[in-house]
Amino acid sequence: MNIRSCAYLCRMKKVGILGGGQLGRMLLQAAANYPVETWLMEAAPEAPAAHLCHYFVCGDITNYDEVYAFGKELDVLTIEIENVNVEALEQLEQEGVKVYPNPNALRVIQNKILQKEFYAANDIPGSAFVITQNQSDLHQYLDFLPAIHKLGMGGYDGRGVQLINAANDIPLGFDQPSVLEKKIDIAKEIAILVAVATSGETILYPAVEMIFDTDLNQLSHQLCPAALQQKILWKAEAIARRAVQGLRSPGLFAVEMFVDHNDQVLINEVAPRVHNSGHHTIEAHYCSQFDMLWRILLELPLGNTAAIMPSAMVNLIGSENESGLAHYHGLNETMKMENVFVHLYGKWETKPGRKMGHVTIISQDKLDLSHKVNIIRHQFFVKAK
Amino acid sequence: MNIRSCAYLCRMKKVGILGGGQLGRMLLQAAANYPVETWLMEAAPEAPAAHLCHYFVCGDITNYDEVYAFGKELDVLTIEIENVNVEALEQLEQEGVKVYPNPNALRVIQNKILQKEFYAANDIPGSAFVITQNQSDLHQYLDFLPAIHKLGMGGYDGRGVQLINAANDIPLGFDQPSVLEKKIDIAKEIAILVAVATSGETILYPAVEMIFDTDLNQLSHQLCPAALQQKILWKAEAIARRAVQGLRSPGLFAVEMFVDHNDQVLINEVAPRVHNSGHHTIEAHYCSQFDMLWRILLELPLGNTAAIMPSAMVNLIGSENESGLAHYHGLNETMKMENVFVHLYGKWETKPGRKMGHVTIISQDKLDLSHKVNIIRHQFFVKAK
Repeated sequence: MNIRSCAYLCRMKKVGILGGGQLGRMLLQAAANYPVETWLMEAAPEAPAAHLCHYFVCGDITNYDEVYAFGKELDVLTIEIENVNVEALEQLEQEGVKVYPNPNALRVIQNKILQKEFYAANDIPGSAFVITQNQSDLHQYLDFLPAIHKLGMGGYDGRGVQLINAANDIPLGFDQPSVLEKKIDIAKEIAILVAVATSGETILYPAVEMIFDTDLNQLSHQLCPAALQQKILWKAEAIARRAVQGLRSPGLFAVEMFVDHNDQVLINEVAPRVHNSGHHTIEAHYCSQFDMLWRILLELPLGNTAAIMPSAMVNLIGSENESGLAHYHGLNETMKMENVFVHLYGKWETKPGRKMGHVTIISQDKLDLSHKVNIIRHQFFVKAK
Repeated sequence: MNIRSCAYLCRMKKVGILGGGQLGRMLLQAAANYPVETWLMEAAPEAPAAHLCHYFVCGDITNYDEVYAFGKELDVLTIEIENVNVEALEQLEQEGVKVYPNPNALRVIQNKILQKEFYAANDIPGSAFVITQNQSDLHQYLDFLPAIHKLGMGGYDGRGVQLINAANDIPLGFDQPSVLEKKIDIAKEIAILVAVATSGETILYPAVEMIFDTDLNQLSHQLCPAALQQKILWKAEAIARRAVQGLRSPGLFAVEMFVDHNDQVLINEVAPRVHNSGHHTIEAHYCSQFDMLWRILLELPLGNTAAIMPSAMVNLIGSENESGLAHYHGLNETMKMENVFVHLYGKWETKPGRKMGHVTIISQDKLDLSHKVNIIRHQFFVKAK
């Protein structure tokens, strides 16, 4: 840890981030445009963001005492992952530390049952759902299938989510409080980033669209702006705004939604933080999602969410059956492309499905975007050495 | 300093930077897009870049032993200021450390006498000059006045430069080896960034133009692209390319030039590093000067120097008669502007003339650029608290 003069310590706001993954990394990249003293708590000292802060604290972000001790000398706290100790944040907030997103909002989002109840209470359209206390409850809802069983607490990044097609899938269901959501006939997946200032001022980014590779049954890329009929976009914007405003918290939020084959827009979930669906904003928008969150945390004016150019974003994911020291194939070929921006997260170890980096393409020409997406998806991948 | 696993240490190239000012800060911001282990040597632990590296070494970059010890475990070394110990870099280069820019090139540029002789030897047009060993030598060159006396070694950032209009100014001249350059009747000041890969591949950025405020007799802003007749631009590009290629070194170079009232282009000087005249490339160009230097250091393909949009850049300079804790006036008003990007360097202390930050404006509309420049220059300033 560097030695700091007292004058330096006295001068800038002290802002802490819980979690040190790639979202923290890009958040700290953006922080260097502003006078702010950055603190980071993260269990892994080699995590992507660990070296980019003024003060790194190696600790468990789910532990009450560690989060409380980390936060109590700070002016502002934020998160880059939901799975943090919310009780410590509540205590810190009571003691005057500003916590964005507010612990109240985080508590609703951390628990999928509370989240679904919150949408229902705020008239935000979503899939029909019932709450189950244990696996055997599922037998009551055979008429409700096919449905998605989601663990109330603790599931994230695909864990704690189980498709229950029919009665014979019930043994796969969760034996703890969970929500059973009716399966939607999805036509399109979209997301809208929403920024909320401490004043309550709320602004939206243009909607993005997730394009799936139907052959491989996986996400191919994201496209901004989403190709949506005006009336569907309006619905989506209204839902995003209402969902975030209902949480009554400053912060940067990502609202994920489904469009079904009847042109209905249904909420999927809200992430109360910078998000994978906003990576393209670094190069393609006047104010990136990371810059926007700093503006909120430092109580500076909100930025311009407009696009400088249309964009596509491709995640670089650890290949199947590859675990070990990361080796990038096709990096040079990709970096030669003229309107392409490569972000590697500095993770030395690749694992199947791990997010290792992303690539953003900007172009006025949508065919150029999809053409380059295809090239990149075929030429750029990560394997173990 | 963070604990690193051995695997992590073994994995990435170790790149060191000498100097930790705002150029180092923006260089490390850009580094976070790539897997690279960053080392920084700088005397001031609270310097703008000090917290953004993996390993910070507090040391004197002009001291042979300290630079040698810093560099000897690294793969690649670069600089963000010319005033470094070049003998240590030469030794390190001999021992196999890659040093970009090469110490040979740095040695030529560090000494204004060698630099002028280098231009003359390479047929690069510049102002006429003579070399002086001491102050009294100036008496021989009364016919050559008005001229600029420049200290051979050690002058930078305006120090070591003295206008000698006539005989009565001679007492202001330097009593050490210096160069006396005939004063040019300047019509325009321009700069071109040049990137040289380790392969020798050389590419140019579009020329930028420095716009002066004739009322205040100071730099108002930079504009990109420079408004130049085609034949003048061609001359400038030829000079920039020849000057940099003559140095025979990979790196990122800024070539500053004058255009006189006879449409002649004359070299002013070359900086062998990222440069103030390239700040606009962060938002306005596909590949920023900082990204470009990482591509060179890591032997990745050179990037695209083209502009995404025309741009202007305004430096935020410490106000006259203001020394002390920096306080920004007009920050909120400036950050509300839609196509404006604020960069503050995190310096807690302001001093007259100190570079505290910069602002980039991008727009397809040149009137919008100059209009916003004017607003920003009048509303955004830094004073002592």
